[in-house]
Amino acid sequence: MVSVGVLGATGAVGQRFVQLLADHPYFDLTVLTASGRSAGKKYRDAVNWRLDVPLPESAGDIIVAETKTECLKNADIVFSALPADLATTIETDCAKAGIGVCSNASSHRMDQDVPLVVPEVNADHLRMIELQRDAGNDGFIVTNPNCSTIMLTVSLAPIRNFHFTDLRVATMQAISGAGFEGIPAMSIFDNVVPYIGNEEEKMERETLKIMGTFDGSEIVNAPFSVSASCNRVPVIDGHTMAVWLDIKEPVENVAKAFQSWRCPIGDLPTLPEKSVDFMVQQDRPQPRLDRMKGKGMTVSVGRLRPGIRYIAMGHNTIRGAAGASILNAELICDRGYI
Amino acid sequence: MVSVGVLGATGAVGQRFVQLLADHPYFDLTVLTASGRSAGKKYRDAVNWRLDVPLPESAGDIIVAETKTECLKNADIVFSALPADLATTIETDCAKAGIGVCSNASSHRMDQDVPLVVPEVNADHLRMIELQRDAGNDGFIVTNPNCSTIMLTVSLAPIRNFHFTDLRVATMQAISGAGFEGIPAMSIFDNVVPYIGNEEEKMERETLKIMGTFDGSEIVNAPFSVSASCNRVPVIDGHTMAVWLDIKEPVENVAKAFQSWRCPIGDLPTLPEKSVDFMVQQDRPQPRLDRMKGKGMTVSVGRLRPGIRYIAMGHNTIRGAAGASILNAELICDRGYI
Amino acid sequence: MVSVGVLGATGAVGQRFVQLLADHPYFDLTVLTASGRSAGKKYRDAVNWRLDVPLPESAGDIIVAETKTECLKNADIVFSALPADLATTIETDCAKAGIGVCSNASSHRMDQDVPLVVPEVNADHLRMIELQRDAGNDGFIVTNPNCSTIMLTVSLAPIRNFHFTDLRVATMQAISGAGFEGIPAMSIFDNVVPYIGNEEEKMERETLKIMGTFDGSEIVNAPFSVSASCNRVPVIDGHTMAVWLDIKEPVENVAKAFQSWRCPIGDLPTLPEKSVDFMVQQDRPQPRLDRMKGKGMTVSVGRLRPGIRYIAMGHNTIRGAAGASILNAELICDRGYI
Amino acid sequence: MVSVGVLGATGAVGQRFVQLLADHPYFDLTVLTASGRSAGKKYRDAVNWRLDVPLPESAGDIIVAETKTECLKNADIVFSALPADLATTIETDCAKAGIGVCSNASSHRMDQDVPLVVPEVNADHLRMIELQRDAGNDGFIVTNPNCSTIMLTVSLAPIRNFHFTDLRVATMQAISGAGFEGIPAMSIFDNVVPYIGNEEEKMERETLKIMGTFDGSEIVNAPFSVSASCNRVPVIDGHTMAVWLDIKEPVENVAKAFQSWRCPIGDLPTLPEKSVDFMVQQDRPQPRLDRMKGKGMTVSVGRLRPGIRYIAMGHNTIRGAAGASILNAELICDRGYI
Repeated sequence: MVSVGVLGATGAVGQRFVQLLADHPYFDLTVLTASGRSAGKKYRDAVNWRLDVPLPESAGDIIVAETKTECLKNADIVFSALPADLATTIETDCAKAGIGVCSNASSHRMDQDVPLVVPEVNADHLRMIELQRDAGNDGFIVTNPNCSTIMLTVSLAPIRNFHFTDLRVATMQAISGAGFEGIPAMSIFDNVVPYIGNEEEKMERETLKIMGTFDGSEIVNAPFSVSASCNRVPVIDGHTMAVWLDIKEPVENVAKAFQSWRCPIGDLPTLPEKSVDFMVQQDRPQPRLDRMKGKGMTVSVGRLRPGIRYIAMGHNTIRGAAGASILNAELICDRGYI
Repeated sequence: MVSVGVLGATGAVGQRFVQLLADHPYFDLTVLTASGRSAGKKYRDAVNWRLDVPLPESAGDIIVAETKTECLKNADIVFSALPADLATTIETDCAKAGIGVCSNASSHRMDQDVPLVVPEVNADHLRMIELQRDAGNDGFIVTNPNCSTIMLTVSLAPIRNFHFTDLRVATMQAISGAGFEGIPAMSIFDNVVPYIGNEEEKMERETLKIMGTFDGSEIVNAPFSVSASCNRVPVIDGHTMAVWLDIKEPVENVAKAFQSWRCPIGDLPTLPEKSVDFMVQQDRPQPRLDRMKGKGMTVSVGRLRPGIRYIAMGHNTIRGAAGASILNAELICDRGYI
Repeated sequence: MVSVGVLGATGAVGQRFVQLLADHPYFDLTVLTASGRSAGKKYRDAVNWRLDVPLPESAGDIIVAETKTECLKNADIVFSALPADLATTIETDCAKAGIGVCSNASSHRMDQDVPLVVPEVNADHLRMIELQRDAGNDGFIVTNPNCSTIMLTVSLAPIRNFHFTDLRVATMQAISGAGFEGIPAMSIFDNVVPYIGNEEEKMERETLKIMGTFDGSEIVNAPFSVSASCNRVPVIDGHTMAVWLDIKEPVENVAKAFQSWRCPIGDLPTLPEKSVDFMVQQDRPQPRLDRMKGKGMTVSVGRLRPGIRYIAMGHNTIRGAAGASILNAELICDRGYI
Repeated sequence: MVSVGVLGATGAVGQRFVQLLADHPYFDLTVLTASGRSAGKKYRDAVNWRLDVPLPESAGDIIVAETKTECLKNADIVFSALPADLATTIETDCAKAGIGVCSNASSHRMDQDVPLVVPEVNADHLRMIELQRDAGNDGFIVTNPNCSTIMLTVSLAPIRNFHFTDLRVATMQAISGAGFEGIPAMSIFDNVVPYIGNEEEKMERETLKIMGTFDGSEIVNAPFSVSASCNRVPVIDGHTMAVWLDIKEPVENVAKAFQSWRCPIGDLPTLPEKSVDFMVQQDRPQPRLDRMKGKGMTVSVGRLRPGIRYIAMGHNTIRGAAGASILNAELICDRGYI
């Protein structure tokens, strides 16, 4: 078993990590960190648990440590659910100290030697870990993208071999993406907020890195443009997005590609049976009905129309955050980097 | 005063007509029709009034007539809030019988001699009424577009002189668009439904007609393509949409066009002070905060970004339905067709 | 294994039955019925599956039968998810034909020889099955109460030995209680509807029967009055209710009773570890956070205050409908009536 | 014209005051205060206006003052929308400085010489202003109750002459009651929160003071008990409540009292035509449909049933907050205290 920890374990994404790591076949959850205020308490007493599945008993007994590198000595891998401003330094320090960091934070995603990984799309980018080791780190940092970028890139995996140069995406994103306290009810009830800070920029640049090519020394960005328009809608979990691609081939060929695609990486505990579920019902996918497919790890795709247009949807705090980091960690173990 | 009636006065759009026609400076509401079941009752007793403003007293006293041409003899203009299947024949019959029909129904929108009018965009298409008169009708049919098409085309009015060939639009539409009974709560709570029957087709073809040119005998469609992706979101009133146009000019020029535009038609009672309100706050427009601007007749535009991308939003049952028909009728009177 | 069927398997409660019966340790699901329109199709093709957990594969292959007694010959027990008007006759016929009926329908709940059972409260009422057998039925009908009544009576189980004569309850009920199509979104968004047809009457009379005493020949109603005020609120699943009881003892004693209570019936597959979870956090229970406790079978109780006042909450389509019937069937098997 | 100000003008209740005071026939809005951060700016620039009606132009031009007594010299009356902790001292200081304070804050509601007024119920309590003047204040403090208490006491006005000793009330309160930022969306979406801090205590003690008798020197509390159970539900505006009273008379007599009641105070600008609207439809009142009745000042009552049970509902930020204070101020002017 690999000993793992969660940095920032009391927040919304931190709680998802704790939930998803209970009874994990590879990982033994031994360290949970939070602010100094919570340090020293049992996790059960430090956390205001707000998921609709119970707090795992074993995690509840862990004594919370402060989020400092010296508290993490026993961990082989730490999952980072820290806000970006806190994550920058501590993640770097962890990597130097020999710890593997699988981070959901945005701090290092665009770093030149840090892989930004979605296993179904660019597992080979993990080779960038070697760049970090060459630079003297015993550990490493591997990041997963922003939640909406994950749904988009997973949906592109089956059709990436079609030629296209122009991608447009309009998102309808869930409120849980902003954390438990992030959005006042008065802001979003009976409403759409057509703005999410930095979200469009993240989708545009992260997609090009993930879909890019690692040539052994650096990433060559994917050769298409991405234009995003990001909106918050009154949905609890599940990011839905309308995608346009200037693929010139007949829509039937694209449909076949979605249907026949098989995920190119082997079995991993968190990898769902179907990473992409291609739906033919005319009114699907829908977040409330489809977000828990594949235990929240499946991206559902539907409404494929000439254009090419389609809808993609996935669970933003599972597939789009904690589950994405855990899947990356499983791949890292599988590929022998731990 | 022009004597007017409302066909299908007990439904969601019908109730909006009744509300908006109370105390109208041009129009005297004298006829309300519904199914045979309601005929003969006072409107107050026939309707299950479900707007959040009270039923106008004067309308409440009107005895409901059956939706038949012979019951409409006293009306100069009738507003049609009928479902498309019922509207087809009766609207034609009314026009033959010398009545002006201002219809929110989709039945005749694409007819070759029927104008599909948004006053700020194509007031001159009203000249098509002459085609109908040439064909022997004493009355006429004038239609307004589908709700989402109205918001889109009004938002295009200030920038239509820029060159573009490719328009994409992803909508986030309110539940009131489907009528009082149209959408079960279990379908849309905590959910997005990425499908609205025929909505994409309507937006695509109606936009091209409205933005097209009437050459005296027929409409030449506008020379660009429209690709729509229509979604239902959990919002009561107000359709929001993300728009992309391949305008090559700098975004500042487009902003100036939005800011300096003035509506080219004269004063009309239902025409708001600003048909397009260009907002510079980074998170607007929002349906709950902006839908009642201009008494529900203003289309708010914001988040203008390179791309060209922007957000447009307007009230779907006022600007997008009953208010649109009434504004058309006012224009018709103003231009002397009544 | 006991062979079981579900009557009315395509509706909201029917789908819950199918979901909860998959891989059941006692029951082998062999028969699914629906209207003639669906008969002959595979269940997978007949149903519009709208739960957020997938349709169990094995159930999907069952050929749907028409809801007629002659189609049920192979079932030892049938679960009835029929509307009341359809349930009356067919349930009676099934019982005559030797089939055990565990019904969620309201038709026979108040019949003099039909037990209305909540296992934690009145398991001994199952003896009324003997009355039915004496009357010549080889099978039987056992009913569970209305969803809101179940939450109330389970919450009363730990404190029923305190003296009280006056019970008031104000409910805040979820929209799923009205079925998939039952409530238009326009009726309940941003709204409370302070009326649910017949619900108050059901809560008042069913509570008295369940809490009453079976003297071997008939039920003597419980000796207190129940006054209910039932409201629909914009919540998907989970009925919450504010309860007042004129218990004169100190609130601490009532708290102890809630804490120390143990369910008086033995282990059953669907019986949760805690039928009543007494919560001390000041703002719990809450439907979204607590409804899935005990796989949806736990009733959460909290906010115990002098008065005596408390809040009770449980999942209305699991504990309050399908799960209740299945738990009854398990108890019936356990007590040897099958 | 009476010169008036608003203390705490940028918050949720403060914005309602500003909206409702525009074009007021008695009051001339001259002073708006906020924290030091906003002082010196135009109100238009200091406020993040979030009502769905536009900011009144005239108010937008007012230069915001800091919330200090010395900034209020020109005001005859100030309306206090301050949080309780800030209100305590400044309201006292204003009264000493000769200013009339009409406060929505809870700080002084239970003070022995401060009237807690709902005009329809206890206009005569305004005589307590004389106690304050005897104590040396040139100005005064008059308070209005907590939002939920207002709906309850207005609903009691028509039936207060029936004998009862026991009042129970379960509330379903809107999210706007907690201010724009008060409730995170993740807390209340698809949820009920059965706890609102101090709300039950406020309802219980404020109701007894309002319904009590002023004997010239002090209030004798009303001779009945109040037991409240307060819940937050996912509704934007409008507090709904289920009420029980142990009135022994037939329900028809109570209905007659509701129907025949006339408000005992004379015309005031903010007093609606009907302070209590008694509804006979079986499913009303409902917050979304009925909250704007009487421009938000009417309390709707319905579902009167034996018990005596009924439902009351009113707009919490208009009738329950800013509108209540303004109505009090109008009464104060009318009675000659200004």
